[in-house]
Amino acid sequence: MSWQQHKARGERHTHTSSRDKMNVPVLSSILLLISTAHAFQYTELAQYIDSHQEEYVEALRDWVAIESDSSNVLKRAELHRMMDMTAQKLRLMGGTVELVDIGEQELPDGQMLALPKVVTAQFGNDSNKLTVCVYGHVDVQPAKLEDGWATDPYNLTDINGNLYGRGASDNKAPVLAWIHAVEAYQALNMELPVNVKFVIEGMEETGSNGLDAMIVAQRDTFFSDVDYIIISDCGWLSRRPALTYGTRGNCYFFAEVEGPKQDLHSGVYGGSVIEPMTDLIGILDTLISPSGTILIPGIREAVAPLSDDEWKMYQDIQFDIENHKNKTGVNQLMYNNKVDLLAHMWRYPTVSIHGIEGAFSDPGTKTVIPAKVTAKFSIRQVPNMDPAMVKKQVTDYLHSVFAKRKSPNKLKVTMVIGAKPWLADPQHPLYEAGKAAVNRVFKTDPDLIREGGTIPIARTFQDVTRKSIIMMPIGGFDDGMHSQNEKISRYNYIEGTKLFVSFLYEVSQLKKTSV
Amino acid sequence: MSWQQHKARGERHTHTSSRDKMNVPVLSSILLLISTAHAFQYTELAQYIDSHQEEYVEALRDWVAIESDSSNVLKRAELHRMMDMTAQKLRLMGGTVELVDIGEQELPDGQMLALPKVVTAQFGNDSNKLTVCVYGHVDVQPAKLEDGWATDPYNLTDINGNLYGRGASDNKAPVLAWIHAVEAYQALNMELPVNVKFVIEGMEETGSNGLDAMIVAQRDTFFSDVDYIIISDCGWLSRRPALTYGTRGNCYFFAEVEGPKQDLHSGVYGGSVIEPMTDLIGILDTLISPSGTILIPGIREAVAPLSDDEWKMYQDIQFDIENHKNKTGVNQLMYNNKVDLLAHMWRYPTVSIHGIEGAFSDPGTKTVIPAKVTAKFSIRQVPNMDPAMVKKQVTDYLHSVFAKRKSPNKLKVTMVIGAKPWLADPQHPLYEAGKAAVNRVFKTDPDLIREGGTIPIARTFQDVTRKSIIMMPIGGFDDGMHSQNEKISRYNYIEGTKLFVSFLYEVSQLKKTSV
Repeated sequence: MSWQQHKARGERHTHTSSRDKMNVPVLSSILLLISTAHAFQYTELAQYIDSHQEEYVEALRDWVAIESDSSNVLKRAELHRMMDMTAQKLRLMGGTVELVDIGEQELPDGQMLALPKVVTAQFGNDSNKLTVCVYGHVDVQPAKLEDGWATDPYNLTDINGNLYGRGASDNKAPVLAWIHAVEAYQALNMELPVNVKFVIEGMEETGSNGLDAMIVAQRDTFFSDVDYIIISDCGWLSRRPALTYGTRGNCYFFAEVEGPKQDLHSGVYGGSVIEPMTDLIGILDTLISPSGTILIPGIREAVAPLSDDEWKMYQDIQFDIENHKNKTGVNQLMYNNKVDLLAHMWRYPTVSIHGIEGAFSDPGTKTVIPAKVTAKFSIRQVPNMDPAMVKKQVTDYLHSVFAKRKSPNKLKVTMVIGAKPWLADPQHPLYEAGKAAVNRVFKTDPDLIREGGTIPIARTFQDVTRKSIIMMPIGGFDDGMHSQNEKISRYNYIEGTKLFVSFLYEVSQLKKTSV
Repeated sequence: MSWQQHKARGERHTHTSSRDKMNVPVLSSILLLISTAHAFQYTELAQYIDSHQEEYVEALRDWVAIESDSSNVLKRAELHRMMDMTAQKLRLMGGTVELVDIGEQELPDGQMLALPKVVTAQFGNDSNKLTVCVYGHVDVQPAKLEDGWATDPYNLTDINGNLYGRGASDNKAPVLAWIHAVEAYQALNMELPVNVKFVIEGMEETGSNGLDAMIVAQRDTFFSDVDYIIISDCGWLSRRPALTYGTRGNCYFFAEVEGPKQDLHSGVYGGSVIEPMTDLIGILDTLISPSGTILIPGIREAVAPLSDDEWKMYQDIQFDIENHKNKTGVNQLMYNNKVDLLAHMWRYPTVSIHGIEGAFSDPGTKTVIPAKVTAKFSIRQVPNMDPAMVKKQVTDYLHSVFAKRKSPNKLKVTMVIGAKPWLADPQHPLYEAGKAAVNRVFKTDPDLIREGGTIPIARTFQDVTRKSIIMMPIGGFDDGMHSQNEKISRYNYIEGTKLFVSFLYEVSQLKKTSV
């Protein structure tokens, strides 16, 4: 889609802001002028970004050097330092910065540990402009050289234009790219086309502890004037840039079977008790068919049917099945064609059995009859599934198959997470703006993709602020987030910064809306 | 059965020793004389034992105070000290004692750690006498006060005649009772009726590391003149004394299903791969029916049928089903009648699924598709099952059910332990001697019981030395071996010492045989 086409489409968007009093032809003319002016600005901004590439890499090196592993309580001081550095960087740029105390977390041993503060920042507060809020995180997954890293995970290493280091792609480079995008405007004395806010947290990798409450608490303050929320915490699907318009939700279950009052010796007691493990294995085996079909009544029926439009869209997405197969290392994927495969990763539910707590799980041998075993499994949620309904369907089903076993043991089914899916309309003007920005920088349309995983914070932002969200990844499809040898390419990092610069402008061309 | 009946029966035993040249009536007369003489000796020995009860309790207190936990490498020094103390006690009694070096064990991190030496001792080497070898162990299971002990597990505490402490019943008191039995004869200047050897190890609780090789190495030296082996490392079934004539063997299997080359995120990849956990759960569910029937073809067919005699014997055994139910804490046992329940614990095979390695087993939630999962399960072996055949039956069966799933994942089935069952003839003169000793001390016949668990060392002794073995427990049915609040009662400890004193005499009345 061309730039002009996008502008024409943007105007058709419903205007609901009371400040918007101009008639459409007048507005259109003004926008065209701004647009023309901006074309030149983009070139300058892009040149500025190119010429500061090494500084950006150095900034990433400084951030990667901090082992801000939120899952490791021994690294909490590093994490606090990471939040301070982030705040300081934004402060030096003239932002209105706050380090928001979100309280403490309780450790398994009952000790309390301070959570890393959430950094909020604001650049510009012109009420005539739209306001975007960029969400990101600067904590990382654990990483140790001996896990199989080719380089020190906390020493950013450039190999053939790939920048290797823990957190490089998830999510430090994208956060820096957003900061550098604002900085570029400032450096060139260009007015920011929109007000830009940041919400940067340090607990994303362990479940965004404390963030939901903070968003709810600041709904009518920090978030009150936010028009759009931008999340760049995901990756492309191929070498083609992507915009992400949906994530699956997740209903996570514990199924506990309890029998004897303590673990028993399998030699001494084997043959005298119905073993909880046998019962648990038996009921777990009724969840999914060998080919992966969910057998829980009602689950598949609730799924929104795949429309012809969707099918066509999936057909056009660039996705290398062979590459996906190599990445997972399996001999054969569940489906051999692109549409089925993508649909089953993104817009159909799946059941995964993660493991069993309470049974023997160490290396070696142990002759135990575990007394109480708890299976952990989860069902990825898609529209139009309803977690409350799924909870009932799963609980009823498991109790009914358990009852048929006539076991003297006790079954307890609990849903411990009920995260709804998130789905945006990829035809929404926000996405049109995104497509325009991608076209400007990469000279190609983005793939419109979904994420099979769950980004619960997207749903929280949507439910609390009632604003539209766009996910605009700049990470590569092969960045190895959460894996050994995580990296981001210089190309994605630098062109990604240009994409953000461009997107800030494109968003400014939209009108304030209620959603 | 009375003492006289026993003597009559003992004589019917086939004599194969070349030294045995007397005709039966002459022998019978001599035995009767010795028996009469002994009756007086027994009273003296029993009185001596009663009057030294407090010393025996103090000796047990000294031993329990040593945390000889063989599973905890940090306690290895304590374990060495325990072996030294045991050797020293036997040396002070005038035994020929050796501390046999059995090498080192390799720890998971590759470090080598010295194994506790095996204590061998010998009292008497009169070639005209029979020689018994008492096996025992002085290492213990782990125990911490905070596990739920009412008293310090390493400070022997007498509550209403029960002596609480880790290792009290398993196996320190029985080993001491055997030592005190020899000591009693010595103290009263009575000649030991048989030569007595001891083999006391310190690794029983972690698999008797190094002992098999030591037995093989000393087959033609230390063990060459041993006629009978006595093991007192088990417990009674009720308040009635017991002799144990069988243990189940154990075939322990690993079933590994491998799919992706590394763990995958269940959100990102769920729906694109056939998950190894689903496959593993699927094949495990084909091992056993909900009611506990083994479904692996060929297993049940190999089991020796329950004879009428056995059925009658089981009928007479004192066993409180309600107590067994309370001990396990289950609502309902697998069988409601005594014979079925005992038969399924002792003389029928059972399958127990112990757990899964490689899956998520911690508390909390993790959204992982485990790449390689290994189920651990074991099948208790009974006559006439053959571990080599069981290995083939299980492997073939699991591969056939796995093949039907048409999964792209790989299945590997390995049998890592193949321990045969052990079964003695409870009509054997050795058991008749045991019954006589029980009758003398407890004025009742013992229950002839089996052990559902595996005591692999019994089978090793049998296979290497070709000698008969008797298991003569003195532990109570409610001693809580391996559990919190382990104890032995003063009654079992002291009357058990009398039992051993008596049994040494009864054995001396048997004739040397080849088996």
